[in-house]
Amino acid sequence: MSTLTTRSQDYSQWYNDLILKGGLADYSSVRGCMVIKPYGYALWENMRDVLDRMFKSTGHQNAYFPLFVPKSLFEAEEKNAEGFAKECAVVTHYRLKADPEQKGKLIVDPAARLEEELVVRPTSEAIIWNTYKGWIQSYRDLPLLINQWANVVRWEMRTRLFLRTAEFLWQEGHTAHATKEEALSETLQMLDVYAQFAEEYMALPVVKGIKTANERFAGAEDTYCIEALMQDGKALQAGTSHFLGQNFAKAFDVKFAAKDNTMEYVWATSWGVSTRLIGALVMAHSDDQGLVLPPKIAPLQVVIVPIFSKDAEARQKIDETAEQLTRSLRGKGITVKYDNDDTSRPGWKFAEHELRGVPVRIALGARDIEQNQAEVARRDTREKMTLSLEGIADAIHQLLDEIQHNLYNRALQFRDAHTTAVDSWEDFVQVLETKAGFISAHWDGTPETEERIKELTKATIRCIPLNNAAEEGHCVLSGKPSRQRVLFARAY
Amino acid sequence: MSTLTTRSQDYSQWYNDLILKGGLADYSSVRGCMVIKPYGYALWENMRDVLDRMFKSTGHQNAYFPLFVPKSLFEAEEKNAEGFAKECAVVTHYRLKADPEQKGKLIVDPAARLEEELVVRPTSEAIIWNTYKGWIQSYRDLPLLINQWANVVRWEMRTRLFLRTAEFLWQEGHTAHATKEEALSETLQMLDVYAQFAEEYMALPVVKGIKTANERFAGAEDTYCIEALMQDGKALQAGTSHFLGQNFAKAFDVKFAAKDNTMEYVWATSWGVSTRLIGALVMAHSDDQGLVLPPKIAPLQVVIVPIFSKDAEARQKIDETAEQLTRSLRGKGITVKYDNDDTSRPGWKFAEHELRGVPVRIALGARDIEQNQAEVARRDTREKMTLSLEGIADAIHQLLDEIQHNLYNRALQFRDAHTTAVDSWEDFVQVLETKAGFISAHWDGTPETEERIKELTKATIRCIPLNNAAEEGHCVLSGKPSRQRVLFARAY
Repeated sequence: MSTLTTRSQDYSQWYNDLILKGGLADYSSVRGCMVIKPYGYALWENMRDVLDRMFKSTGHQNAYFPLFVPKSLFEAEEKNAEGFAKECAVVTHYRLKADPEQKGKLIVDPAARLEEELVVRPTSEAIIWNTYKGWIQSYRDLPLLINQWANVVRWEMRTRLFLRTAEFLWQEGHTAHATKEEALSETLQMLDVYAQFAEEYMALPVVKGIKTANERFAGAEDTYCIEALMQDGKALQAGTSHFLGQNFAKAFDVKFAAKDNTMEYVWATSWGVSTRLIGALVMAHSDDQGLVLPPKIAPLQVVIVPIFSKDAEARQKIDETAEQLTRSLRGKGITVKYDNDDTSRPGWKFAEHELRGVPVRIALGARDIEQNQAEVARRDTREKMTLSLEGIADAIHQLLDEIQHNLYNRALQFRDAHTTAVDSWEDFVQVLETKAGFISAHWDGTPETEERIKELTKATIRCIPLNNAAEEGHCVLSGKPSRQRVLFARAY
Repeated sequence: MSTLTTRSQDYSQWYNDLILKGGLADYSSVRGCMVIKPYGYALWENMRDVLDRMFKSTGHQNAYFPLFVPKSLFEAEEKNAEGFAKECAVVTHYRLKADPEQKGKLIVDPAARLEEELVVRPTSEAIIWNTYKGWIQSYRDLPLLINQWANVVRWEMRTRLFLRTAEFLWQEGHTAHATKEEALSETLQMLDVYAQFAEEYMALPVVKGIKTANERFAGAEDTYCIEALMQDGKALQAGTSHFLGQNFAKAFDVKFAAKDNTMEYVWATSWGVSTRLIGALVMAHSDDQGLVLPPKIAPLQVVIVPIFSKDAEARQKIDETAEQLTRSLRGKGITVKYDNDDTSRPGWKFAEHELRGVPVRIALGARDIEQNQAEVARRDTREKMTLSLEGIADAIHQLLDEIQHNLYNRALQFRDAHTTAVDSWEDFVQVLETKAGFISAHWDGTPETEERIKELTKATIRCIPLNNAAEEGHCVLSGKPSRQRVLFARAY
C-alpha cells in the first residue's frame, strides 16, 4: 500500500488520495466525469436509502422524468435558463455513421441533425413543470409531492471528485401547492429533513440558513441551505431547498381551479442533495490514515481480522469464534466481514481497513480466545481496547453508537472553534488568512458589498442563519448600518 | 372515469389506455421519452429491489459509470459500435448562449463545440471496459462482478410506452473472468436469475434460450435470453445475458497476469433487464377492467374500502375495524391502504382500484361488521367472497399467495395453448395468422432462411430453447435437413 499525503502536506492531494486509494471513486476518460466504485456506491446507497425513507415518511413519492429537455422548454423560465445555459451539454444529432475516410471510425451523421436541440438536464424544473401542466387542474390535484433520483450534467470548468463533477447523481424534489404558505412550509420542512440527515447520519453539524440574492438558485424566490465546515476551514453547501414562488407556474402556465372556482397559479418548491455529500463526509471526518466513516452509513461497520498461528487447531478455534461473533453481530443488524484472506498479513489488513474507514476492527488470535477476549480498535480515535467475548456483540453495538456521537461532537467542536465573530475589516482578513472557518460579521445587505468582499478575499456569504439574533452593527467593509450578522467563508 | 378500450377492440390501444389511465406512465414532450409516474415507479422500485438482492446474493456489487462515452471509445469494439451507431444521441456542444436575434431565446454556442463528440450511452461496455483496463492486472483482481442501475438512450424510430422508449431505465451487469468456462457459467447463472425473477415475482413463465446470430447482441459471442408470450400471441424478449468472449478485452487491451505469470486477455459477460419488463407485466396479466399486478411486486397489495352509512356510530365502527385490520395486515408484511376518502363513492373506488390492479379489495360495511365478516374481492378472477373477520389477515395472506400462483398458472396455460409445433410452411403461415403464439418448427440453421421467413411473415426466431430435444427434421421453409426445432413468433 502506497503512503497517503497528509492533510498538513497538501489538503487537496490528501482528499484525492483518500477518494482514490480508499476505493470510493476513480477518474474516467470523460472530461470531468468520475466512476463511482463499488465501495463509494455502497456508501451512496446507504445515504440514498435513509433519505428515501425520510422523503416517503413526509408524504413524497418517487417518479422519473426524461433526461433531455427540449431547448424551447429549457428557455421558458428565463432566470433558470440564464443561470444554467453556460454549462449545458447539448445533444444535436441522433446518429453516427461510418467515416468514409477512415475504416472502422465513426462520424456524426450530418443528415441526422435534430430539429430542436436537447439539453441534458442540469436540473429538471423545466421538464417537470411542463409535465405538471397536464397533471394539475384543480385544488384536488394538490399538493403534488414528487421526488426523482437521477443523474444530471453541468459542464463545470474545474472539477473535483465528488465535490464538482460534470455528471453527478442526486435527488431532486419538485412539489406543487395551492398556497404560498404551504409551499414555504414545505421548503422549510425539507431543509429540516436535510439537516436531520446530515447531523444524525453523516455526523455532520450544519448551519441552516437562507442565501443572499447573489447565491440564490436561478429561478428561485428564496434558496435555503445547510452549510457545513470542512477540516481546512472552508465551507461546503451540503443541500438546498428552494421556494420557487409562482415563477415556474407562470413560465409553464400551470393554473388550478381553487375551491371558489377561481383559476390561480400554483406555488412551487424544489430541493436537492447530491453525491457531493460524499465529498463533504470525507473532508469532515477523515484523517491522515484514511477515511473515517460514520457507523450509521458506513458500507461495512465491523471487520474481524484473524491473527493466525501455524497451529491448525488454534486456527480452527479462531474461525469458529469469528463465525459465531459474525452471526451475533448480524443478529443486531450490524454489517460485518470476516477478513480471513490468507494472502495478506494482519498488519496489511489493519492499514487497509483503516484506509477504508471501517468504524470498528476486531482482532482475534489464539491467545485472545484462550483468555475469552478480543482486541477491539475504533477507527475514529484509533484507540485499542480489550473486550471480553462475553457480551461483546452488545458492547460493539454501543461502541458504534459512541463513535457516531463522537464524530458529530468532534466536528461540532471544530466548527465552534472555527466560527469567529469579527467586527473590523482588518480582523476579517486576518481571521480568513490565519484561521479560516466561518466568520460571523455585519454586512450592509447590498449585493455590491458582497461582490466586493468576494473579489477582495474569495470569501462569500454562506448564509444568513435562520436562528440569527437581531443585532445592530456596521458592515465590516462599507461601515454602513446592519441589523444582523451573516456567515462568511471561503467555500467549496 | 373514462372507459377503457377492450383487448378485442384494439389490443394496442388497450395497452396504452392501461398504462396512461392506470397511472403507470405518461407521454413527455421529448420525442420517444416517457414520464414514469409515481405508481409505475413504485412498481419499478419493487422489481429493482428484488433483482438487486438477487444480484448481491450472487456476489455482485453496484457501481456507477459515466453517462457519456467519448466517440473514440465507443468505436473501439467494432461490432458493438456498428450495432448501436444508428441510434445514438450525440452531445456536440457544452454551452448555450443568448440568441442575438430573439430576446429571451437561446442558441447553441458555436464556440463551445467539443473537440470529441460524446455519445449518450446506449449500453456501457465501452466505457466500462476502458475503466476495467485500469482495475485488472492479475488473476487476483478477478472475477470482477459489477452491476449498474442507470438510464440509457437508444434513438428508436418507433416508440411505445415502456416497451420501446428512447430513454429507458435498466440494470447492466458487466463481469470479467479469468477463464472462458467461468464467464460462460456466469452468463448462464444470470439467465437463471432473470428466469427466476420473471417466474416467481412477475408470475411470467419464460423460455430460456439462445439467440441466433441474426438476433445476437452487437459484440457478443452468444446471447442468451428469456422469452415470454403476451396475450395477443406476440413474444417479448424479457432479458438477455451475453457471453462476450474476449472481444471487449481485445478492443480495450485488458490483460491479466495468470497464476503461471503469462499475460492473458480477460473473458467477459454482460446482462440486462429494463423498464420494458413493466410492459411485459401489463400485457401478460391485465384484462379489460385494467391492470392485474402480481401481489409480490404490486405497489399496493390490499385496499380497504368503507361502505359508509349516514349513521355516525356505524361509521366509527367501520373506521375502527379498518384500522385494526390495516395493522394486522401490515404486521404480516402486507402493504395496505384504507381508502376512506369521502369525496368518491364505493363503486367509483372499486373501479379505480381494479383499473390500478390492486390484488385484493376488502369492502367493509356496517352490516358486515355486525356479522363479523367482510366482502373480499380478488383482482385476478374478480371473484367475491365473504370472509370472517376472525383470522382474516391470515386468509388474505394466503389469498395473495394464491393469486400469485394463479397468475403464473394462467399465463403458463395460455403459453402452452399457444405454442404450436408445425411441420409445413402452409401450417406455419396459417398458425401465425389465425392463432399466433410460439411456433416450434425446424429451421435449416442459415441466417438467409431466417431472414427470408422474417420478410415473408414478420416472424423471427425468438430463441433456440436451452432444453431442446434433438430431433431430425426438415426446415419449414427450405426443406433442408435440421436437427432441432426452434421457437418462432412475431415479437415486440
